[in-house]
Amino acid sequence: MALLERFKEYLIKENLIEKGDSILLAVSGGPDSLAMLDLFCRIKDEYNLNLLVFHLNHMFRQEAFAEALFVKDVAENYGLQVILEEFNVPEYIASHGYSPEEGARKARFYFLQKWASQYKIRKIGLAHNKDDLVETVFLNILRGTGLKGLAGILPLTERDGLLIIHPLLDILRLEIEDYCRKRNLNPRFDRTNEELIYTRNKLRNKIIPELEKEINPGLKGVVYRMALNIREEEAYLNKLASEKYKEALLKRDKEKLILSLEFLAREERVIRRRIVQNAIRELKGNDLDLYAVHYEAIEDLILSSQTGKYITLPEGIELRRSYGELIFTRNSPDLAEEDIIELLEIPGEVVWGDFLLKAEILQQSGKWREERGNKKLCFCDLKKVKGPLTIRKRRAGDSFYPFGLQGSKKVKDFFIDEKIPVTERDKIPLVLDKEGNIIWVAGYRPDGRFKVEGDTEEILRIEIDYMGGD
Amino acid sequence: MALLERFKEYLIKENLIEKGDSILLAVSGGPDSLAMLDLFCRIKDEYNLNLLVFHLNHMFRQEAFAEALFVKDVAENYGLQVILEEFNVPEYIASHGYSPEEGARKARFYFLQKWASQYKIRKIGLAHNKDDLVETVFLNILRGTGLKGLAGILPLTERDGLLIIHPLLDILRLEIEDYCRKRNLNPRFDRTNEELIYTRNKLRNKIIPELEKEINPGLKGVVYRMALNIREEEAYLNKLASEKYKEALLKRDKEKLILSLEFLAREERVIRRRIVQNAIRELKGNDLDLYAVHYEAIEDLILSSQTGKYITLPEGIELRRSYGELIFTRNSPDLAEEDIIELLEIPGEVVWGDFLLKAEILQQSGKWREERGNKKLCFCDLKKVKGPLTIRKRRAGDSFYPFGLQGSKKVKDFFIDEKIPVTERDKIPLVLDKEGNIIWVAGYRPDGRFKVEGDTEEILRIEIDYMGGD
Repeated sequence: MALLERFKEYLIKENLIEKGDSILLAVSGGPDSLAMLDLFCRIKDEYNLNLLVFHLNHMFRQEAFAEALFVKDVAENYGLQVILEEFNVPEYIASHGYSPEEGARKARFYFLQKWASQYKIRKIGLAHNKDDLVETVFLNILRGTGLKGLAGILPLTERDGLLIIHPLLDILRLEIEDYCRKRNLNPRFDRTNEELIYTRNKLRNKIIPELEKEINPGLKGVVYRMALNIREEEAYLNKLASEKYKEALLKRDKEKLILSLEFLAREERVIRRRIVQNAIRELKGNDLDLYAVHYEAIEDLILSSQTGKYITLPEGIELRRSYGELIFTRNSPDLAEEDIIELLEIPGEVVWGDFLLKAEILQQSGKWREERGNKKLCFCDLKKVKGPLTIRKRRAGDSFYPFGLQGSKKVKDFFIDEKIPVTERDKIPLVLDKEGNIIWVAGYRPDGRFKVEGDTEEILRIEIDYMGGD
Repeated sequence: MALLERFKEYLIKENLIEKGDSILLAVSGGPDSLAMLDLFCRIKDEYNLNLLVFHLNHMFRQEAFAEALFVKDVAENYGLQVILEEFNVPEYIASHGYSPEEGARKARFYFLQKWASQYKIRKIGLAHNKDDLVETVFLNILRGTGLKGLAGILPLTERDGLLIIHPLLDILRLEIEDYCRKRNLNPRFDRTNEELIYTRNKLRNKIIPELEKEINPGLKGVVYRMALNIREEEAYLNKLASEKYKEALLKRDKEKLILSLEFLAREERVIRRRIVQNAIRELKGNDLDLYAVHYEAIEDLILSSQTGKYITLPEGIELRRSYGELIFTRNSPDLAEEDIIELLEIPGEVVWGDFLLKAEILQQSGKWREERGNKKLCFCDLKKVKGPLTIRKRRAGDSFYPFGLQGSKKVKDFFIDEKIPVTERDKIPLVLDKEGNIIWVAGYRPDGRFKVEGDTEEILRIEIDYMGGD
């Protein structure tokens, strides 16, 4: 069957599109994403699709700029609108200790989310192929996984209200490259990427070919089928568990979530584990990756008899026993413990905690007034501010001059007045100038001392964006 | 913790022994089996164990004979009884197209089963270690597997009424070798075996070390934990499915088994697949390894609407739709189609179909009379028989002189009188002499022409044993 037909069949079989869909396509310029773009364009009219192309320049190296322009050209040749973003991924991964693959993935998802929300698009198309799926299964096995990881990549996942679709999962890399040749798509191979994703490439270029040669030439096929089966088994167990979760749930609000200990203790571990995952997902908005040690601690906690006993999981999730109840709450884990200070150049951008902060310079004459009132933005008179700026969490004794109030106020009192829970306070970034004056309690209130006035010539615009959720 | 303590803990945790157990230990003479033997001997008194050592000489090469003697010495030093068997595995695998690993495993299991039944022992101890488990998981993945294969090797499995225990599964090969050194066990490394199990060794000596070096030094640990998790998920799904199987079951007798089609169609595929596996296991006495294509055919059959539609699975299992019923029957698949002829030397042994046939020469003066009446044995006057013997299935026109009857009879009529179902008839081996005379309808009736008489000097004893069930 021709690739176009297989593509359509897969979209239908896995329920990936509906007529009239708007889809934001992530296009790197490599063979996979160009093939995906081309395939979607070929069914655009039939399905009445609204397609938008997104490209992120990861700034791993110089050629990336040319690639961005290439993607722009390609998209425009198809008559599609294109969004180009740049983000200093090498700096981001260096400051966060991520692997290049992980960092690039997080950054990409952040911007995809941002633009999807900007354009009110619910669907994002990613061009992973069958080889990627097989490699992901192996990587997950090699790093430790449960059933979920053995399914590799799912054709459709919901995340923070977005639908992520992977329409090329049953197509081999070779078939895609062949398609690109036949359709004259001239993909750009990002050689940086090739070098940076070290472990995946080790598998891709060395281990898997060796296994195919020595053990089973049909390796990719069997691993793919295994992943399909596992997906079904996992879905079935999840379905059972989410029904049971509803039965186990005693109470739920924004701050906490309570399950019946008696109910949990009665279930089998396989299901109990999934009920707990359900609870965490509800509380947190997305999944939490847990390891065997965590599940063991959760087991001990549930099967213990000690009221008041508690454990803390990654990302500040706390589970506590209390008179027949298992209470889930979420704290700020990392920042509460460490005093992380980041510098923010003007202009420049930096990631602090779960947030991305960005400083830029605007002219007084520009259209900045339209954005006033947006809590995610802060506008100052540039000449009043000495850079670079510093980002840190609150410290004892901090005070500032809240915009709109007379005089100064302790940050602590400000947080109390704003009814910000104690557990949240250490997660809020404060932006300070070189002198150590707070110029913005980011996301909440600017300092009045730096405000824009009639004689302001240049404006410092600072933006904060939530990057969490992965 | 010392290895002895971990061994005991594992035995207890996985419910592998009880006080007073009799255990048949398979001992090759390599480090794993010597360590297992030594460990069991150290807890023998505490648990009041009755231990019996079994060794199979696979006849892969000359040194194997020395190894058998070594195992005999070791066992006797521990004061244990030892059973030594020899079986020409190279010939067996050549004639059956098995891989060396597969052939050796089948042969080993056959003899273990035979001796366990002889000594009325229900428990068999095999010395696979954690590395073996991890390698098995990889091999299963590389060859295509579902959840069951991802669990690798189970600590306890029931098979044909026997309990197979693997007490060393959470101990690494290195730890076992270290234990052997400390306890001065001086294992014999079977270098043949090392060379013959090609794919496993490729993984063991090349791929896994490479993955440990390049991707995750803790690889074995994570794969082991994954296998433990999967074992639990699989057990849970199997438990659900076996309850549902009972509900789906309409009728069952020795010949066939009937499930409700309506019930099956209502279930989810994950469970439906396991219900079918349950039915096959019931009918066949043990599991049948099915591939994705088989499950797809089963799905199509169940969800079809065509009465009378049927499919045939490996090992002659047939599934047929009939007015709301799914009917499982078992035929003879291979032999019905092919006319396989094997030679049986005197003395000698040969495998034909699912059977092992063995010819030997006894003295008239021996104790052979005690065995008379056993249907698995045939005794002839050696001087009346011209060897080598031939083993084949029935052919049109075959006739013989059934022992105890006057004159000759068609084999066909004999089968009818014996009430042997048509589907079974091609599975019964006939033993013929060089002239083409039937001397034994094996397992049923000898021919009277060759019977032992007063003047018989030497007796030809032929034994038939069922080797199926793997």
